[in-house]
Amino acid sequence: MDIILQFCRHKLLPRACATATSCKRLSSCAHPLRTSHTPAPPPSPLPLVSRLFQPSNLREGQDSGDLTCRSQRLMLQAGLLHPSNPGCFYYLPATVRSMEKLVRLIDQEMNAIGGQKLDMPALCGADLWRRSGRWDLMGKEMFRLRDRHGIDYCLGPTHEEAVTELLASQANLSYRQLPLLLYQVTRKFRDEQKPKFGLLRGREFYMKDMYSFDVSEEAAHHTYQSVCHAYGRLFDRLGLRWVQVQADMGNIGGTLSHEFQLPADVGEDRLLTCGSCSFSANVELLEAGQTDCPQCQAGTLVESKGIEVGHTFYLGSKYSEVFSATFNTAQNKPTLAEMGCFGLGVTRILAAAIEVLSSDDAIRWPGLLAPYQVCVLPPKKGSKVVALTGLAEELALGLGSLPGLRGEVVLDDRTQMTIGKRLKDASQLGYPYVVVVGQGVAEQQPQFEVICQQSGETLFLSRDALTDLLSRVETV
Amino acid sequence: MDIILQFCRHKLLPRACATATSCKRLSSCAHPLRTSHTPAPPPSPLPLVSRLFQPSNLREGQDSGDLTCRSQRLMLQAGLLHPSNPGCFYYLPATVRSMEKLVRLIDQEMNAIGGQKLDMPALCGADLWRRSGRWDLMGKEMFRLRDRHGIDYCLGPTHEEAVTELLASQANLSYRQLPLLLYQVTRKFRDEQKPKFGLLRGREFYMKDMYSFDVSEEAAHHTYQSVCHAYGRLFDRLGLRWVQVQADMGNIGGTLSHEFQLPADVGEDRLLTCGSCSFSANVELLEAGQTDCPQCQAGTLVESKGIEVGHTFYLGSKYSEVFSATFNTAQNKPTLAEMGCFGLGVTRILAAAIEVLSSDDAIRWPGLLAPYQVCVLPPKKGSKVVALTGLAEELALGLGSLPGLRGEVVLDDRTQMTIGKRLKDASQLGYPYVVVVGQGVAEQQPQFEVICQQSGETLFLSRDALTDLLSRVETV
Ligand SMILES: [Zn+2]
Ligand SMILES: [Zn+2]
Repeated sequence: MDIILQFCRHKLLPRACATATSCKRLSSCAHPLRTSHTPAPPPSPLPLVSRLFQPSNLREGQDSGDLTCRSQRLMLQAGLLHPSNPGCFYYLPATVRSMEKLVRLIDQEMNAIGGQKLDMPALCGADLWRRSGRWDLMGKEMFRLRDRHGIDYCLGPTHEEAVTELLASQANLSYRQLPLLLYQVTRKFRDEQKPKFGLLRGREFYMKDMYSFDVSEEAAHHTYQSVCHAYGRLFDRLGLRWVQVQADMGNIGGTLSHEFQLPADVGEDRLLTCGSCSFSANVELLEAGQTDCPQCQAGTLVESKGIEVGHTFYLGSKYSEVFSATFNTAQNKPTLAEMGCFGLGVTRILAAAIEVLSSDDAIRWPGLLAPYQVCVLPPKKGSKVVALTGLAEELALGLGSLPGLRGEVVLDDRTQMTIGKRLKDASQLGYPYVVVVGQGVAEQQPQFEVICQQSGETLFLSRDALTDLLSRVETV
Repeated sequence: MDIILQFCRHKLLPRACATATSCKRLSSCAHPLRTSHTPAPPPSPLPLVSRLFQPSNLREGQDSGDLTCRSQRLMLQAGLLHPSNPGCFYYLPATVRSMEKLVRLIDQEMNAIGGQKLDMPALCGADLWRRSGRWDLMGKEMFRLRDRHGIDYCLGPTHEEAVTELLASQANLSYRQLPLLLYQVTRKFRDEQKPKFGLLRGREFYMKDMYSFDVSEEAAHHTYQSVCHAYGRLFDRLGLRWVQVQADMGNIGGTLSHEFQLPADVGEDRLLTCGSCSFSANVELLEAGQTDCPQCQAGTLVESKGIEVGHTFYLGSKYSEVFSATFNTAQNKPTLAEMGCFGLGVTRILAAAIEVLSSDDAIRWPGLLAPYQVCVLPPKKGSKVVALTGLAEELALGLGSLPGLRGEVVLDDRTQMTIGKRLKDASQLGYPYVVVVGQGVAEQQPQFEVICQQSGETLFLSRDALTDLLSRVETV
């Protein structure tokens, strides 16, 4: 094979221009204005279903013995996941698209309350965790390893120690810079005894963890409420039913804790809710067998199950004391920061949403998280209306150029398959909108058949009405 | 503290609506059309420099003994990085913004050549790596750990084994589905003997790794060229000088390999380039002391240094044979896929770009990767033109609402500091455009002072001309 070696567009060999600053031509090309000098973004090809790596043949050969919940079964069937080691999965392309949308939503909500995104190391030194006393406390749930020099590390399942040390290194932190809300969305590790339910309880998962630093308990409570509101807002935007319940502090510590739960039969958490007042708590928080409400003393507690998708903790100065994370007050007096920490299970939200929204044979996504919003079906090869194939492709390109729908429209080009078979696939994968280019489009007044999965309706629309409908689809 | 427990907007207690499908009201709220039912995206606040976690006091107390290269020094000074364990860093918010932009660029380029993004587990079972023979071969560079059941894993530094196993599990893969280009952008781990140069040689880093599967050697070569072109295009869009050189196969294996290098004195790679023809190679590929060009036999080889930012390998069937990764030909005959693998050092590109573009005291980013494009400076508190403060804020909000500049405009509200001091900070952090709202804006014909870092020019522009200039800034 002959590979033609490429050079930078300036055709400058390395030695001809050894430092950036000496190269006159360089200064124009690093310029961010759109000019003829810089290549434009490449065009994005129309996604074709035949080429999507969403392998339907994963359905076969699957050991279905441990597929104990709906979301895991559906996600494996639809080729969204592929199993690796116990509790570890390949997230296939459609899942990555969905997860990236969820992360953008989370970013929006965290940004709106002043959150700033950073990224902390996954390798956490044992010394840090020994100082907080959690190196031993975490037991077998933590993955531990040693580097080539014999130093002990864990794969951070959570980052209270790391972030507090970061703050403590800020010698001149002023009260004016607080509250400070720092968060990350990263892969976390937990050596579960029995990983199960697919993404609901894995050993590798993505989590958003946010840490807050405040000047006082009162300010910290204000921050706590503001994060809880942002969480509620996020789940509302996803169209999920959720409930906030009082929760146990676990080994994170602190004095106040809540969970955000999605009601679901497969949920591993048992919740107690009062029929007479707003009391709601994880059963872990109450005495075994307690049935009367501790808040109103009048109502009876009723049990239900939930999937925990968020958890909030008010930590006080538990960690800031250990690491001496202080700020300077207006009087220039170093004072311990009051902390909170706030988690969202990113991959768990994906699976939990599928769990609660889907039917047994068709995935239904929260609209904003569907990997693709629209699937266009051209006629079957050899059918009477095969002449419409070009129009279907042109329609898909047109819809895909609507501002909110860039990259969101796929063409199911598997025209060797009947419309019916492809509709079934489309329904299983959960496209919110499926547009059939069939007989109706060949009529005098062309009508496109549009199946709206979310409402269950089938509409027959002119091209203008179709464009109008789809241009109102909200995407993120 | 009283925390008011929140519920889903439907005020449905868990038991009142136990399954998603039975809840009539739910079906409207999961609907992705923008309606009065779903909350709108929250407004994004104007970023204020006083609140950005870009800690300038990290400058002090830094052990500068091992700050052996420009990018590491600049990134620590500007509060872009904070050191953790050896070879591990906290990526602070501005760095995360820059990295996310780079990932979007990479996504565009990979998408344009048909790449599909997935996400593979970081924990890779020893069994997989034993099958390829690399469990022993990798030696001490690989982080290894054992789970609670005593099973051996490594933290995958690369994923040839994992992705080939994924493909091998696709019993019905057809030649029609190839070429298949799968890639991920994930955190990788390598237990470097001596981590150094900040993000240039760390133990944790982000990498884009792509794996290609083709029907024949010829098709695989075509894919190889297409990825190389995409890499060249990416570096061109970043405005970086680069060179593609022949390279050693290392322990990945294969029969053909190239590196993408940024010429730089701090580079750890030594490159040999012929003055008479297009020959360029990593010195590792040639006999020690060789000075005559093996390609044209005429030219002399000249040595220079480079930072490796990309690496491509043609693997042939090395891995597909081990894991039996086959596809079915048109004659339905199972045939081994021809593979390639293609890496880009994501965090390394960030540092390398800063290394080659910056001066000793000011970071210069590739325009597309600057964490923020524009910084607006209101007058100093108590100055003669302090009345313009409101206008500066309004200007920042206005510019930040231009289509390409959402979230890209910051206001340096530290008005206790002089314009000069803030300009110095701005120059150090490398905003491509700094807009000073000063005396000139108070004149009859208001003139905004605009410092364009990339071209080194200072312009005096009317508000319309300023808006026109900045609306042409390319962002990603
Ligand atoms: Zn009650
Ligand atoms: Zn030569």
